[in-house]
Amino acid sequence: MGGTELHPFDPLTVSEIEATINIVKKAHGELFYNVVSLHEPRKAEMTKWLEDPVNVPKPARIADVVVIAPGGKVYDGLVDLQHGKITKWELLKGLQPIITMEELIAVEHICRKDPKVIEQCEISGVPKDEMHKVYCDPWTIGYDERHGNEVRLQQALMYYRPNPDDCQYAFPLDFCPIYDADKQAIIDIDIPKVRRPLRKVDPINYHPAAIEKAGGYRTDIKPINITQPEGVSFKMSGRQIEWQNWKFHIGFNYREGIVLNDISYNDKGTARPVFYRLSLAEMVVPYGNPEHPHQRKHAFDLGEYGAGYMTNSLSLGCDCKGSIHYLDADFPARDGSIRTIKNAVCIHEEDAGILFKHTDFRDESSIVTRARKLVIQQVFTAANYEYAIQWIFHQDGTIQPEIKLTGILNTYVMNEGEDTNGWGTQVYPGVNAHNHQHLFCLRVDPNIDGPNNTVFMADALPSDAAVGSPENPYGNAFYAKRTKFSKTGESATDYNADTSRTWEMCNTNKLHPYSGKAASYKLISREVARLLPKEGSLVWKRAGFARHAVHVTKYSDDQLWPAGRHVPQTSGEPSAGLPEWMGDGSESIDNTDVVLWHTFGVTHIPAPEDFPVMPVEPITLLLKPRNFFTNNPVMDVPPSFASTPSQVAANNNGVLDAADKVSKLAFRNGESCCAVNGTNGVNGH
Amino acid sequence: MGGTELHPFDPLTVSEIEATINIVKKAHGELFYNVVSLHEPRKAEMTKWLEDPVNVPKPARIADVVVIAPGGKVYDGLVDLQHGKITKWELLKGLQPIITMEELIAVEHICRKDPKVIEQCEISGVPKDEMHKVYCDPWTIGYDERHGNEVRLQQALMYYRPNPDDCQYAFPLDFCPIYDADKQAIIDIDIPKVRRPLRKVDPINYHPAAIEKAGGYRTDIKPINITQPEGVSFKMSGRQIEWQNWKFHIGFNYREGIVLNDISYNDKGTARPVFYRLSLAEMVVPYGNPEHPHQRKHAFDLGEYGAGYMTNSLSLGCDCKGSIHYLDADFPARDGSIRTIKNAVCIHEEDAGILFKHTDFRDESSIVTRARKLVIQQVFTAANYEYAIQWIFHQDGTIQPEIKLTGILNTYVMNEGEDTNGWGTQVYPGVNAHNHQHLFCLRVDPNIDGPNNTVFMADALPSDAAVGSPENPYGNAFYAKRTKFSKTGESATDYNADTSRTWEMCNTNKLHPYSGKAASYKLISREVARLLPKEGSLVWKRAGFARHAVHVTKYSDDQLWPAGRHVPQTSGEPSAGLPEWMGDGSESIDNTDVVLWHTFGVTHIPAPEDFPVMPVEPITLLLKPRNFFTNNPVMDVPPSFASTPSQVAANNNGVLDAADKVSKLAFRNGESCCAVNGTNGVNGH
Ligand SMILES: [Co+2]
Ligand SMILES: [Co+2]
Repeated sequence: MGGTELHPFDPLTVSEIEATINIVKKAHGELFYNVVSLHEPRKAEMTKWLEDPVNVPKPARIADVVVIAPGGKVYDGLVDLQHGKITKWELLKGLQPIITMEELIAVEHICRKDPKVIEQCEISGVPKDEMHKVYCDPWTIGYDERHGNEVRLQQALMYYRPNPDDCQYAFPLDFCPIYDADKQAIIDIDIPKVRRPLRKVDPINYHPAAIEKAGGYRTDIKPINITQPEGVSFKMSGRQIEWQNWKFHIGFNYREGIVLNDISYNDKGTARPVFYRLSLAEMVVPYGNPEHPHQRKHAFDLGEYGAGYMTNSLSLGCDCKGSIHYLDADFPARDGSIRTIKNAVCIHEEDAGILFKHTDFRDESSIVTRARKLVIQQVFTAANYEYAIQWIFHQDGTIQPEIKLTGILNTYVMNEGEDTNGWGTQVYPGVNAHNHQHLFCLRVDPNIDGPNNTVFMADALPSDAAVGSPENPYGNAFYAKRTKFSKTGESATDYNADTSRTWEMCNTNKLHPYSGKAASYKLISREVARLLPKEGSLVWKRAGFARHAVHVTKYSDDQLWPAGRHVPQTSGEPSAGLPEWMGDGSESIDNTDVVLWHTFGVTHIPAPEDFPVMPVEPITLLLKPRNFFTNNPVMDVPPSFASTPSQVAANNNGVLDAADKVSKLAFRNGESCCAVNGTNGVNGH
Repeated sequence: MGGTELHPFDPLTVSEIEATINIVKKAHGELFYNVVSLHEPRKAEMTKWLEDPVNVPKPARIADVVVIAPGGKVYDGLVDLQHGKITKWELLKGLQPIITMEELIAVEHICRKDPKVIEQCEISGVPKDEMHKVYCDPWTIGYDERHGNEVRLQQALMYYRPNPDDCQYAFPLDFCPIYDADKQAIIDIDIPKVRRPLRKVDPINYHPAAIEKAGGYRTDIKPINITQPEGVSFKMSGRQIEWQNWKFHIGFNYREGIVLNDISYNDKGTARPVFYRLSLAEMVVPYGNPEHPHQRKHAFDLGEYGAGYMTNSLSLGCDCKGSIHYLDADFPARDGSIRTIKNAVCIHEEDAGILFKHTDFRDESSIVTRARKLVIQQVFTAANYEYAIQWIFHQDGTIQPEIKLTGILNTYVMNEGEDTNGWGTQVYPGVNAHNHQHLFCLRVDPNIDGPNNTVFMADALPSDAAVGSPENPYGNAFYAKRTKFSKTGESATDYNADTSRTWEMCNTNKLHPYSGKAASYKLISREVARLLPKEGSLVWKRAGFARHAVHVTKYSDDQLWPAGRHVPQTSGEPSAGLPEWMGDGSESIDNTDVVLWHTFGVTHIPAPEDFPVMPVEPITLLLKPRNFFTNNPVMDVPPSFASTPSQVAANNNGVLDAADKVSKLAFRNGESCCAVNGTNGVNGH
């Protein structure tokens, strides 16, 4: 199984996936493979190995398996790859595992041949002989109380393409077939009371032929070349990366996509642990149109489809520029063969502007140091939408998860003159893009100088003392009020912009020698839309994690995904995942191994600018060291320029000028209409 | 005066400044010149000229002059440069004009010779023969009720440097001399009740000698070269720039630094006005320590010192990379000579990642288009702090003002074992960095398809209808509630994170053909710390603009700076600037020429990581077109890769592959330990 040189956090290799499937096949015959993925090592065992990899035995390689057997029977299993045996095999009742790309792809073909779908297409204005022009985006049904969760179901969002290259989202159809994945048949069709036939408007496309027809491309964008003639500044050892004092392991799974483990920062020779595990663990995209069956549009893209399964194969000079390193991803296909996504993850550096700068106004002695960042990226396609997930590492110890939204709006047909009632926007004639939210849940397993951490909430507040009182004579006093989360119940908190609220993951056993404050990483997150579906609503019940910006739980192996392990068709009664783990709120989370769950995101009220393809909208947040380093940890990054008062006094003798010689003036003298005075660009600092 | 080829928004040229000073000198003799700057053309006249520059006479060049005459008398004047005459000359009472760099520089020298300062230094532990090691950062006094505003005063924040190259902020002194700028003498010293002698700790420095001594610089950062072999994609005509459908004028003044005027976006051949004027118009940095005299630390860096006057001379390959165009700035020196800041503004492009991307999951046909941004930047040094102000233009019509904070914390001495009481943080032994806020006021003069605009507030809210009601059966309904600001009083509003509040500047006369919504630019700003000094406090009174995130006023010429025209030593009784202009709140701002004032920023609770020099902390916001363009306005940006379903079906025949050929794999096969499968990086899309 070639496991000897594997890191315990490495994803299962092709041969490990194949071995697993052979073992399962031998025991249970023909099955559909929904998941064959690394069963992550138990933390207690793993921590021991990480502390002493030479002497402690490496944790065993175990495969986490989910299959669907004939008749729609779902099994959860574990396969011990060292011993070649199945250690767990459990039949699940009322639970549906993640939907695979192949299950999705099948629906469209079946829709096109279904007589009732053909009938509805005709009613909508699509003639029978144009069924090859009918497309569907198959989504899990979410939850529909009429259908429950014993039968594996999808809903088909229907579209029409006048031509194969037309953007279908300009041509939505008004009915919604329900697909039974076991029977591979349409079992029902939701037909709205108010019918909205196909609107035969002009297509709106972004492909080259359409742009050429509309006047062609802009011709005034000159190339920007980014080159790294001496190579990259990071080193890879398998999937472990070292860069600018950072060291961590880059995992990848079907569900979360990128998983970062065992993140440490080398602080002057000491590798200080920072996070045990970081991932985007779940998301939900609720749509705000109350008309049936739009309430079923609230995709849990990770739990229902998988950020790994939906990930794009990336390419040089398109998805990123410069010198790029790629990692592939291997998954089982449904039939037990192997599906490989080449270049599933890209790793590259970017110049990041000024890192720090200061000029002494007395003599203009100055220092300018430029910053560098490291980006670990994947892009996944969730039917109409794309999400680019970037894990950005900064030299100063800051980690910045950033999500870029692009792709295409989910759309629904509207009649001429119809009122959207404020639940959506007509982005193109006859095209209603419904209001929606993109809410993401970040799972943060802090390891700030060790596993025993405590989370505090910090609120910037004015002094309580009145203006003019002895304690606050001029009324300017303010401070950061810190509230400790001693028990899980205290941690369910929301963002408060009035107090610029942040949350601090602290090691209270490690006080800073100067500030006396606990070593910490601060969560700074400002894009924290609240869940807008109301308390008690279907989405509120199913997406328990999204009820608050922050929850903190005590660490427990396998509590990875906050909407639960198997998300499709959960009713939310009871609410799976995080609400279960929060329990009655009485568990102690003080100075122990904790996990912080952070839900953030945006409310998207569509506009025509978002259609037919949406310019990137970024959402970002920071995990920032505070009272962690003795002082500024990046003073040893080589400056581009540095002069001191004594050097300035000595006619700049000894000044360090390491500015890059590749940068140029945009216009040479005479070339620019505005080069009035021959500015040469190199005399200032 | 060489005015013929000047644009009316151009800053005064050297010859215009000289001409102005000659005219004033002739009339009024020797004076100190605090300001000689463009008196901006009146909007009514300017608008007529902009509409028809061929036939309408160009607005006259007028100089705005502020001088200090012997005896500390302050005059505001206007000089008509066409006719060579003074058209206004007004003696000001109880107002102090902006402080110049030269006024600041003078204080330190006088402090060092003042016997009472020398005495206090000795008490603090600095021997008399070390007065050359004593430094001060002179600040305006702000407002001190004991001293009023008839006498021009500064306060000297005192420091010590063991050696000339040492960072003084590690060695604060505890007393504060008061300097009379007219007498050029120390007239008083504020001595705290609790004395805190100089702490003779080891210096902490970021200059190369110190880093070398501490182990040297990192050696593992490989160069990233950014080149533009075909030149830049923007054109300059004087100070007017054209780039990617944008066109605008880049002004610069002593006060605000960069001023952008007459901003339009060419929408398929039609230049559509967007903003008449954009600038950072004021800022305030209140400190939160209630002990006297720290309440006086609340710098209005623009109104009291000037973002133009304090601006840095920038340099290639340091402050930005690639192909850069620079603009200089010319100012009067105090004595009437000319001070030129070379490279005060830099203009450059950057690659900006993915602009949009979509993949059809059925066949993996896809499009990837990369984005470009244009950055107009200045960096200014406000004593200890630096602010890099970036005006970022995106191809899709979005404007992103971004401010990067760096430089050095303002510090105060603390005794061993002293409690900061939560008003500050010990960032180094004996060094107390007080809590503070950086609050900025953006002045936005919208011109959305013309001057008559209306501002709305938009709040994302759940439907009022209960879960299970016929209007909201599943409880998922939500919408954007829009509130119109009809009168100024309604516009004084705060950020609300619960509703993801935004503000929309709309042209209600121009409804979108599809959405039916008004053409608008949306203000999206999430870093909106509230003013923490309490209502009625000194800062609250002086910084009226900072009481709310948004105010809207009816446009009026000369209402440019929201803390008033002359800020030093204002008492805040009454509160100058914006509170005056808001008046009783009854003025109509519906469908007329309006100005939106946006106060945003951060609360900074210092940590040792910020010392002795602070890694950049960015603050950003967006002005984003919504319901303005017919559809996505960037579909004509050439893609890096584009394939359609029919091309995929035809074996990728006709696919557009324009990915840059300069990007490379980080590791060639065999070179990397992890190149398991020869990933070549070019097969994915
Ligand atoms: Co969206
Ligand atoms: Co600060």
